[in-house]
Amino acid sequence: MTAASHPEKPLTNYATNSKGLSVKPSDLLDFCNHQIDREALAALAGQSILNPRQFDRRTVVALSQLAALLELRNVEIDKPLDGKIAITAFFEASTRTRLSFESAVLRLDGKVLSVPDGQVTGIAKGESLADIGEMFNTYGDVVIMRHPDTNSIDEIRKNLQRPLINAGNGSGHHPTQALIDWYALLKWRPELVSPDCPEDRRIHLGIIGTPGSMRAVKSFLRISLMFAGAVRKITLISEMADPVGLDLTEPIEQSPIELEITNDVQEVIPELDVAYVNSIAFLGDSYRNLGSRYKIDCNSRLKPHAVVMHPLARNKELSTDLDDTIHNLYFAQAAGAVFVRQALLTAVLDRLDRVSGI
Amino acid sequence: MTAASHPEKPLTNYATNSKGLSVKPSDLLDFCNHQIDREALAALAGQSILNPRQFDRRTVVALSQLAALLELRNVEIDKPLDGKIAITAFFEASTRTRLSFESAVLRLDGKVLSVPDGQVTGIAKGESLADIGEMFNTYGDVVIMRHPDTNSIDEIRKNLQRPLINAGNGSGHHPTQALIDWYALLKWRPELVSPDCPEDRRIHLGIIGTPGSMRAVKSFLRISLMFAGAVRKITLISEMADPVGLDLTEPIEQSPIELEITNDVQEVIPELDVAYVNSIAFLGDSYRNLGSRYKIDCNSRLKPHAVVMHPLARNKELSTDLDDTIHNLYFAQAAGAVFVRQALLTAVLDRLDRVSGI
Amino acid sequence: MTAASHPEKPLTNYATNSKGLSVKPSDLLDFCNHQIDREALAALAGQSILNPRQFDRRTVVALSQLAALLELRNVEIDKPLDGKIAITAFFEASTRTRLSFESAVLRLDGKVLSVPDGQVTGIAKGESLADIGEMFNTYGDVVIMRHPDTNSIDEIRKNLQRPLINAGNGSGHHPTQALIDWYALLKWRPELVSPDCPEDRRIHLGIIGTPGSMRAVKSFLRISLMFAGAVRKITLISEMADPVGLDLTEPIEQSPIELEITNDVQEVIPELDVAYVNSIAFLGDSYRNLGSRYKIDCNSRLKPHAVVMHPLARNKELSTDLDDTIHNLYFAQAAGAVFVRQALLTAVLDRLDRVSGI
Repeated sequence: MTAASHPEKPLTNYATNSKGLSVKPSDLLDFCNHQIDREALAALAGQSILNPRQFDRRTVVALSQLAALLELRNVEIDKPLDGKIAITAFFEASTRTRLSFESAVLRLDGKVLSVPDGQVTGIAKGESLADIGEMFNTYGDVVIMRHPDTNSIDEIRKNLQRPLINAGNGSGHHPTQALIDWYALLKWRPELVSPDCPEDRRIHLGIIGTPGSMRAVKSFLRISLMFAGAVRKITLISEMADPVGLDLTEPIEQSPIELEITNDVQEVIPELDVAYVNSIAFLGDSYRNLGSRYKIDCNSRLKPHAVVMHPLARNKELSTDLDDTIHNLYFAQAAGAVFVRQALLTAVLDRLDRVSGI
Repeated sequence: MTAASHPEKPLTNYATNSKGLSVKPSDLLDFCNHQIDREALAALAGQSILNPRQFDRRTVVALSQLAALLELRNVEIDKPLDGKIAITAFFEASTRTRLSFESAVLRLDGKVLSVPDGQVTGIAKGESLADIGEMFNTYGDVVIMRHPDTNSIDEIRKNLQRPLINAGNGSGHHPTQALIDWYALLKWRPELVSPDCPEDRRIHLGIIGTPGSMRAVKSFLRISLMFAGAVRKITLISEMADPVGLDLTEPIEQSPIELEITNDVQEVIPELDVAYVNSIAFLGDSYRNLGSRYKIDCNSRLKPHAVVMHPLARNKELSTDLDDTIHNLYFAQAAGAVFVRQALLTAVLDRLDRVSGI
Repeated sequence: MTAASHPEKPLTNYATNSKGLSVKPSDLLDFCNHQIDREALAALAGQSILNPRQFDRRTVVALSQLAALLELRNVEIDKPLDGKIAITAFFEASTRTRLSFESAVLRLDGKVLSVPDGQVTGIAKGESLADIGEMFNTYGDVVIMRHPDTNSIDEIRKNLQRPLINAGNGSGHHPTQALIDWYALLKWRPELVSPDCPEDRRIHLGIIGTPGSMRAVKSFLRISLMFAGAVRKITLISEMADPVGLDLTEPIEQSPIELEITNDVQEVIPELDVAYVNSIAFLGDSYRNLGSRYKIDCNSRLKPHAVVMHPLARNKELSTDLDDTIHNLYFAQAAGAVFVRQALLTAVLDRLDRVSGI
């Protein structure tokens, strides 16, 4: 034989998730009549993306629409980020987030300056984040940073004049992950785009985790509170006394969405339309895995059409035995990451006009 | 003076090896009347490259022909991998293999998503290879992986839908290295391309190493067994009781090439046309250098026109005092690595039609 | 609101330094009547850049002129390094130098093969620098190396046939940093370009550091000695008995510039036009920070228009309380790094004809 006997999928298009529920970007665009809210996107030009509170429902929807367009299309022809350099400065180890940002940049024909292990490099000669920010001014056009310190954002922005995208700051926020989460939800149920869904189509969202110390969960909750017309109720399942944390108190009070807090996962699971799971928390000065007590697997009493989400990487809190079921939305969720980041970078770097059809 | 006094070689073409035997890609192409076996190459489109047993003699020759064409030509104009992203996922440290793959991709105008130290990154959050494979589906178009675990290939392919190129899996295989080795041999003696060389032109191949625990040596032996019309005899020189290992037992039995096993390097050396040296073995769960006992240097009683090969990096088993001699084929062998990997990637990513003249 | 409330600078041009003195590339070009010394640049084609003694005043000026041109212009259109691969081989940790070289390559549309942590990788399998140099011959078109061993340059050049750019070798030299330093000085005071400045415009240069063991300082001093028509006097402020080191003894003797050595920083400071500060020294086999005794801050009795320079990263020897003053030339100095490296790479890789207007 002249070649391997393992037939692979065709090379001409992006692969999607290999298992679980398949969600289609075309469903979202069809529901929106292929109208993309360009005004909301244009407002992001030159902006730093630091905290989900910068967004509103309209911006989240617009970014999802653009992500859907980019997912469906071979953007190689448009080359929207031609000539732009993105600096990925990861002062905290990450595979997924760094690579998906870098893939997004490369797919759009931008260039990447990669600092995969910034902590070692930076600390070696005792350089401050403020000085690093100054340095980045002439090295690139946008800085994507992850850092274990929550206040790293303020530090680097002392001198940085380029837009900064927060890819996770300690126990702070992870705004682009929340955009990815909502992109998956909007592809799954395009009608959630509406400011006012029919009552029976609104979802009951369960979050198994502790927003106060888990940045991905916190950002997801923050965005979810903006979708009052789509979310009927949010249930937080946590073993912590006060799982919410100070900075979400006010948004929760102001949102019309009912918020329930419980520590009884068994009781709540059968009521949920969406179960969002996470386990990595930032406590004090290190990461701790809180996944041992609450575990979702194929024995969890999920509703027949309920979906499970997870920002990944996962640990024992999410069993692989769900991978092959239609409850698995987390693979589709992960598969959307590159496209959402493409959409965001195109908007922030003011290159919407390079994407035909917006 | 206005500049340095060290004149360098011209910048317009690829440099070749600085020392040792010089072998020319044009010799190979001339011998083949510049006919490249396109059919054999086309069969690789979309395939994973995992084990040398996937190949046959014809495919090895066709890849060498394409490598020769690419070595002779400035492919910048063709840009065969334009728009393609290769992920280099190295869960085991490597300079040569990673960089030569990345150089191959860049030379063809593809893009690289680099994970130079995957082990640290991946393990940090306890991510499984299966989940990493799922993640890669939307990040790139082909995955090039090196991993210390032999079964890592099966693990990552549980969810990976993109072609996977095995760049070394524990004590398993290193198929692209074997292609590089044969590219050097076919440039050195183009008549070895023939399915049936004249008897007196067939070579006696000596392998100083232990295929059972050395993946590069194992893959080289596996490919060599396919060249029954070119190889007269293979002598394995090893201090191990059973150096071959289980998975090559059958191919050895089925090949008409005589295979001899000895531990007396002194006796065998004077008979060899080619001495293939390696010393890094994978034993149990770590790498061990087995090079101390057998050492090739300028005092080894090599035939006047015998050549020495080595996949590099080398240790004491291969002396630098051979570097300036015509026995040194290992520098030419190393210099071919980028072109063979270019050829393979062009075929796997189905971009043969972008290279003019095939 | 639909977006962040932090307005950033416009995206269409390179950012400059955020604080301190602003220096304009147009001032330098205007002073030179936009005449760039192309002959001096052309002589660099194919050359390795190892030691500042390779340069003369004319070459330093020509590189600064080209850097100014590139800083003013969007070179994306010219794509001067299209098809070229630069290998950044950093066997010693560095953020600034590696990233600014890589940014320079990417800005000119070249490609980068990055070895951010060469020491770990290379040593893992015991590879010699000579073998690594041989390997690089077919992997890239130019090699940019930093290494803790001073003699690493000779080692890698045993087999390397590509131009090598020394990005710092132990206590040896750091020639591109010195070019960057002089680019900042020539933008600050364009008349320093003249081979014979008016007496009252010549500068008194103070170097707070130990050239013998600090490569950046050594290279800066070596270049400064070439500017006899622009520098009135150089004062070395060091607590070491013999701060100069052997290899600069002769150039110092041959230069008409007066050189004074002192350890009394307080006495000298008020006389200086330029105070060049550094603190990281290479002593024996490791780096030591010598910055504790001499510290420059806003209480230092600097002349009203004196400027402070520093190659960065800084430690306590240079206080951040100077950042917002007009004494701060170090941020402008750092901001020029990418453009000087662009100029050098364009010349070394023989692509001057791709930059319109030279």
